[in-house]
Amino acid sequence: MKRSSACAIFPSKIWDSPRWITTALCGERKTGQQVAAIFRELAQHGKNVLATRTTKEQFAAVKKKVRAAGYRDLARAIILQRDARKYGKGTIAVVSAGTSDIPVAEEAVVTAEIMGNDVEHFYDVGVAGIHRLLANREALTRARVVIVCAGMEGALPSVVGGLVGVPVIAVPTSVGYGASFKGLTALLGMLNSCASNVSVVNIDNGFGAGYVASLINRLP
Amino acid sequence: MKRSSACAIFPSKIWDSPRWITTALCGERKTGQQVAAIFRELAQHGKNVLATRTTKEQFAAVKKKVRAAGYRDLARAIILQRDARKYGKGTIAVVSAGTSDIPVAEEAVVTAEIMGNDVEHFYDVGVAGIHRLLANREALTRARVVIVCAGMEGALPSVVGGLVGVPVIAVPTSVGYGASFKGLTALLGMLNSCASNVSVVNIDNGFGAGYVASLINRLP
Amino acid sequence: MKRSSACAIFPSKIWDSPRWITTALCGERKTGQQVAAIFRELAQHGKNVLATRTTKEQFAAVKKKVRAAGYRDLARAIILQRDARKYGKGTIAVVSAGTSDIPVAEEAVVTAEIMGNDVEHFYDVGVAGIHRLLANREALTRARVVIVCAGMEGALPSVVGGLVGVPVIAVPTSVGYGASFKGLTALLGMLNSCASNVSVVNIDNGFGAGYVASLINRLP
Amino acid sequence: MKRSSACAIFPSKIWDSPRWITTALCGERKTGQQVAAIFRELAQHGKNVLATRTTKEQFAAVKKKVRAAGYRDLARAIILQRDARKYGKGTIAVVSAGTSDIPVAEEAVVTAEIMGNDVEHFYDVGVAGIHRLLANREALTRARVVIVCAGMEGALPSVVGGLVGVPVIAVPTSVGYGASFKGLTALLGMLNSCASNVSVVNIDNGFGAGYVASLINRLP
Amino acid sequence: MKRSSACAIFPSKIWDSPRWITTALCGERKTGQQVAAIFRELAQHGKNVLATRTTKEQFAAVKKKVRAAGYRDLARAIILQRDARKYGKGTIAVVSAGTSDIPVAEEAVVTAEIMGNDVEHFYDVGVAGIHRLLANREALTRARVVIVCAGMEGALPSVVGGLVGVPVIAVPTSVGYGASFKGLTALLGMLNSCASNVSVVNIDNGFGAGYVASLINRLP
Amino acid sequence: MKRSSACAIFPSKIWDSPRWITTALCGERKTGQQVAAIFRELAQHGKNVLATRTTKEQFAAVKKKVRAAGYRDLARAIILQRDARKYGKGTIAVVSAGTSDIPVAEEAVVTAEIMGNDVEHFYDVGVAGIHRLLANREALTRARVVIVCAGMEGALPSVVGGLVGVPVIAVPTSVGYGASFKGLTALLGMLNSCASNVSVVNIDNGFGAGYVASLINRLP
Amino acid sequence: MKRSSACAIFPSKIWDSPRWITTALCGERKTGQQVAAIFRELAQHGKNVLATRTTKEQFAAVKKKVRAAGYRDLARAIILQRDARKYGKGTIAVVSAGTSDIPVAEEAVVTAEIMGNDVEHFYDVGVAGIHRLLANREALTRARVVIVCAGMEGALPSVVGGLVGVPVIAVPTSVGYGASFKGLTALLGMLNSCASNVSVVNIDNGFGAGYVASLINRLP
Amino acid sequence: MKRSSACAIFPSKIWDSPRWITTALCGERKTGQQVAAIFRELAQHGKNVLATRTTKEQFAAVKKKVRAAGYRDLARAIILQRDARKYGKGTIAVVSAGTSDIPVAEEAVVTAEIMGNDVEHFYDVGVAGIHRLLANREALTRARVVIVCAGMEGALPSVVGGLVGVPVIAVPTSVGYGASFKGLTALLGMLNSCASNVSVVNIDNGFGAGYVASLINRLP
Repeated sequence: MKRSSACAIFPSKIWDSPRWITTALCGERKTGQQVAAIFRELAQHGKNVLATRTTKEQFAAVKKKVRAAGYRDLARAIILQRDARKYGKGTIAVVSAGTSDIPVAEEAVVTAEIMGNDVEHFYDVGVAGIHRLLANREALTRARVVIVCAGMEGALPSVVGGLVGVPVIAVPTSVGYGASFKGLTALLGMLNSCASNVSVVNIDNGFGAGYVASLINRLP
Repeated sequence: MKRSSACAIFPSKIWDSPRWITTALCGERKTGQQVAAIFRELAQHGKNVLATRTTKEQFAAVKKKVRAAGYRDLARAIILQRDARKYGKGTIAVVSAGTSDIPVAEEAVVTAEIMGNDVEHFYDVGVAGIHRLLANREALTRARVVIVCAGMEGALPSVVGGLVGVPVIAVPTSVGYGASFKGLTALLGMLNSCASNVSVVNIDNGFGAGYVASLINRLP
Repeated sequence: MKRSSACAIFPSKIWDSPRWITTALCGERKTGQQVAAIFRELAQHGKNVLATRTTKEQFAAVKKKVRAAGYRDLARAIILQRDARKYGKGTIAVVSAGTSDIPVAEEAVVTAEIMGNDVEHFYDVGVAGIHRLLANREALTRARVVIVCAGMEGALPSVVGGLVGVPVIAVPTSVGYGASFKGLTALLGMLNSCASNVSVVNIDNGFGAGYVASLINRLP
Repeated sequence: MKRSSACAIFPSKIWDSPRWITTALCGERKTGQQVAAIFRELAQHGKNVLATRTTKEQFAAVKKKVRAAGYRDLARAIILQRDARKYGKGTIAVVSAGTSDIPVAEEAVVTAEIMGNDVEHFYDVGVAGIHRLLANREALTRARVVIVCAGMEGALPSVVGGLVGVPVIAVPTSVGYGASFKGLTALLGMLNSCASNVSVVNIDNGFGAGYVASLINRLP
Repeated sequence: MKRSSACAIFPSKIWDSPRWITTALCGERKTGQQVAAIFRELAQHGKNVLATRTTKEQFAAVKKKVRAAGYRDLARAIILQRDARKYGKGTIAVVSAGTSDIPVAEEAVVTAEIMGNDVEHFYDVGVAGIHRLLANREALTRARVVIVCAGMEGALPSVVGGLVGVPVIAVPTSVGYGASFKGLTALLGMLNSCASNVSVVNIDNGFGAGYVASLINRLP
Repeated sequence: MKRSSACAIFPSKIWDSPRWITTALCGERKTGQQVAAIFRELAQHGKNVLATRTTKEQFAAVKKKVRAAGYRDLARAIILQRDARKYGKGTIAVVSAGTSDIPVAEEAVVTAEIMGNDVEHFYDVGVAGIHRLLANREALTRARVVIVCAGMEGALPSVVGGLVGVPVIAVPTSVGYGASFKGLTALLGMLNSCASNVSVVNIDNGFGAGYVASLINRLP
Repeated sequence: MKRSSACAIFPSKIWDSPRWITTALCGERKTGQQVAAIFRELAQHGKNVLATRTTKEQFAAVKKKVRAAGYRDLARAIILQRDARKYGKGTIAVVSAGTSDIPVAEEAVVTAEIMGNDVEHFYDVGVAGIHRLLANREALTRARVVIVCAGMEGALPSVVGGLVGVPVIAVPTSVGYGASFKGLTALLGMLNSCASNVSVVNIDNGFGAGYVASLINRLP
Repeated sequence: MKRSSACAIFPSKIWDSPRWITTALCGERKTGQQVAAIFRELAQHGKNVLATRTTKEQFAAVKKKVRAAGYRDLARAIILQRDARKYGKGTIAVVSAGTSDIPVAEEAVVTAEIMGNDVEHFYDVGVAGIHRLLANREALTRARVVIVCAGMEGALPSVVGGLVGVPVIAVPTSVGYGASFKGLTALLGMLNSCASNVSVVNIDNGFGAGYVASLINRLP
């Protein structure tokens, strides 16, 4: 497979990477027309296409130009899937703390899926009800890489990191109020995780976490 | 018992509170002579005396003037205990995450003890090794109030808060490096705890946590 | 009473606590339909139900599904009260500095009340008019635990803390402008209180303060 | 009196102001030799001289060159007083919260005194023991301008501001630990004072407060 | 004149001060009805009334209840002036840097005027065009106290402070973008002024500056 | 291999992970005696032992108790290597920007090596001399995972991330001055990387980066 | 050419500079009427006029009063060009990282052009696709001064700075999300650039960069 | 002149730039031996050599290896000057606010001089004594580029920027205390300068300012 190109999370960032099956763009700060135009252009590469941070209005504009495009509500993502083969060697687990964290978790899920991975998700397993997380310990340890999304105090990656022996990608979310400072508190907490297998991406960056996890999971 | 007086955590702050058995002072930014002078003055009230954030040099100076004074190394506290009766109704649990958090936890312990409480401590039960904490769940639920000390990401109070049905006093510690910002990250994490039974005191303020816990524990 | 469950201040956080009479949810970032659905589900446990940070529109949606639900305007809370017995041993005092702090104070009041406490409130007793606070000193000292809500410089908990011998829960509010930084200044002030009996919850977290105070007040 | 000149709080800042009786310099980041040289130069104007933030070593160096110079220990100030007439119309009150705030308060006192004012000080009247402050209410209301120095939560100016009907100059001090952030918390608190008669100077800037208060007090 | 009462800048803050001729309230976060109700209540004291941070809609509501009320557009203030005597001993100068700073400056002007002062204003004299400021030097030095309003880098108080020998009240404004951080940069700059006669109030607090300046100007 | 245990980067944090060959501890805030005692205890598990952030004095104390221990100067690490088999599937590349970043890079190198990986390093390839980095492009693309250490503006991970198709672990270092804020600027830059394959660990956390990279590299 | 005058980036800031051919104003926080009035006034000086940060509505208002005015969409600028001579000695290069940075870059372009410079732009050459930047190296080195606009991590000026031997003006943009903090991260990164030929202007200040570059380019 | 190479402000950063006459290194965090070794290596290129942020001890070590090296005390710089030709077209003015800013200003001076420029300096011309600055207006306007160093509120570049029609490079210094936050306040102030001809370098980065100014001054 030759190097295809794709817009990264912001417009006009093209990545060139061998064996790539998906191209992506970010819908934020774009009109429906702009998203539709870029999406169609990316679709001409014959690969999967992913547009994150999009609205239903933007999807309607895309749908007119690319009939086969679909919309993933929870993830707020427009997708065009042509290559559905699995490139990942194992399963990617996506864990999230509260209901409000689900959109970010779903962005990670859809990113990982369209890049050719099996994904298993574990939602509403926040640390204040530790038994719910522990009830899933067995399943969690089967994953080849784990993504953990949490807002407020961002404690979940530390606990999950202690339960598994694989890389954990932590995604702070902007969920919270007052001294959560729109995700800054969760971000800082995750960077200071006492579990050594945790690395961190930007606030609400479900796409980045799904992307890194996919790269890890397809390592030969 | 009539209202006694005591210096609070900074010099010359006198608190007046009915049924008080202990007076306290803070040794920070004071010479050995100054600590010794204040300590002797407080000792003249005939109550217990507690001096926090003190050095061995300050203790030596105190010892010369108040023979019966003792030193609690881990807590860095000088104490004079005359009234050893229990005023607390139940047990105060003191939980800490890592070895480096122990001095702050011990300051809470000695404060609670000298104010007439039974204290049980649970150290090195950080969230990255959740089984160590869970192994103590039974014991934790017996406490009437719980103090939790943690640095780095400060996640422990959220997990403990979910395990017990009593008030939890969270103490962020300055343990960590880089983006821990000397305890700020732990402080913010604790303020955003998803466990609703958590309230927070200042960074490294083991004294304050022991004090509040004592007030709670002696409520009739 | 067996362990009931309730959504905490953010969606899908369930707390499990013995002898619990109230379940709660947070309306923020939810549609009327979502709040109504969760509220009805919680109502099926046969306990009291509390929904904080709700709008009148959300209440209208709830009202259609749960006839007995009521709305507390000032507190912006939807309530369903079935068990009106008193579980608290004494009175919880709720003190606030200015008129703009009242919504947060009322959230604390309604939380404490629905959890089975007698509540007495003292509003508009800010520190710049200290005589108004002092006029209530007698009444304040009768409380078993005190909640203090203040924005701007957040000085009130320190003064109240010096007047009473019981635990004080401080709630910074986002009231202010310019360098109040949406409650950060009040939060920092309260964490640095020179009164040792003060612990702090998140900005505008009246629910958390009412919750912690209730746990303290019902200690046997 | 013609315009004299004086170094302000940092070296080589000369102020020119009619009817000025005092010249000043700041000793910070200067060797004893440098302080002595500047002090002698200022002394040649025949006015009072004030050097703030100085050490005893710097004073020793000054003393060799300017025999009549004296040292104010608590204020860490070197002074040379030639003109002792009173230029202020009334009294300047200097209020401070805790013992650790006294050096900053004393810097304000010595500045106000050497600029020709009667000064009355009220120390250790922090808000957690409000009765100590109120005991001085009578005396406070006699002042023509009030300086208030406080660290930690910086609440004192709000309370004092509510007690008097004259301008209050608030000086945040770096006293505190953890979330006091070296005076930042006190500074923010004072800027958000709910008392409208409060204005603020930089952290630990006792000199600036004494200076502004002197300007106010000598207004005809 | 007996002590009148007035709401300070936030609702329900009552100040009690001898010889007061004006009562005030803040319109922010209030409905027209609420402002009108408080305004009428204050008007019953027979003094001047000032409502800051108000809209034309709020004024319309006030006007229905208090016929004699007027609106100062630039200052966004509703006023009711009954006592027009001068209580200030001299003139208050109000200086501002740019056009966008004028609303804050006007709030200071209207506050000072309704409290019985002569006010002279100097607008659009920012430091990047220093000749415009210097052209007014003569006039500036005649003032008894100077208020300086500036956003962006907040440099103007330092320059003005060096030109006059009287107290300067600096008001940072939220004018600017990017790294002005809504007035924080101007605030910090003013607190670090190298002119010693500068003290500072909160961001956009024209009322506070006018208030403090009035207290200074009416000192006997 | 059964689960061994090891102290993580702070004292008393034990990790339990299947197939683990190395145990580790952090020397910071410990005496030589303490490090030596823990090191010997860990050595009794028969695995490799790694002590990071240690001094030569601490090494001397360890050497007395564990003869076979060695010291890696640049990495400031004490090591005991018994199992030298390669567990990693490919090569880990460690890239750093400037000479001052080398200690952090070396901590990553020694961690990866003692955990059974081949490591190739590329130092002094900062972005201001982009040709030096590009000269190594060929070699970089052979790595299975890349660690990038940089201080100051922290731009290097973005450039490296664009050159390779594998996961990049970014380590901000505290190298810089002024507005580098001890690594905060580099940390923020890396979290905002426009390259989607970058995840981040704490400031100066070479150990964490080496640890995560090892987990990735040994994935089957 | 005599000194003309022009409003700088905020209203009423007039600059006076010999040989000036352009006057400018900033449309932010102004009504269409206000912009039109100032624009017409500036136009009466007979020079070029530039209004930045304007909307199409503001342009419509200007167009009614100044027929010859034109609108530059991408730059959001209203211009009136009368003097089209070249005053710059060489070419100004404007480089930007992503599509979202283009409005800021275009503001720099239009500023430089209306001040009499030849401008060459290089867009979408972000550091994650370094080959696109390097493909323009030859062209870049021909510029006499280079402006670089970038958001997110703000790494581009460091790389460009290493490629050219002339002054680089870096403009952080507010492009990004989460920990980009509205351009603060890019700003800090640029201030810490390891390329020594970089100086920085405020976030999104394309006008300032174009202005400084013009001053440099017209140096004799 | 062919491209020479030189270490930039941090070790091992080599810049390659045509027509370069000077190579430089930064002494911070280096032993005397390390500085001496690098200095000698750079000296072998036959160009001028500049080592900034050095101590007298480091100079002594250099002196032993490179006899012709000299030390500039105020600038804390070691220099080796072989090529003394003037490459700059005009004069670079270096302006500073207070005595404490002089070391940073001198670093800019020595950098500009060794790169072949005529430099004129104007010290102690802070904005609080504006007449001292204005007295030099004539001389300032003769410069081809101006460097302005200031700490505290950092207001000087705005005033200077308004006086001259050439590029101004602003250097915030770490001079100040309290809310100066080690130069952050000055940095923010300069970035928000209302003078449009100002660009900014890192705190205390006199070298960078001298470097950029030299690039500007030698433009043909």
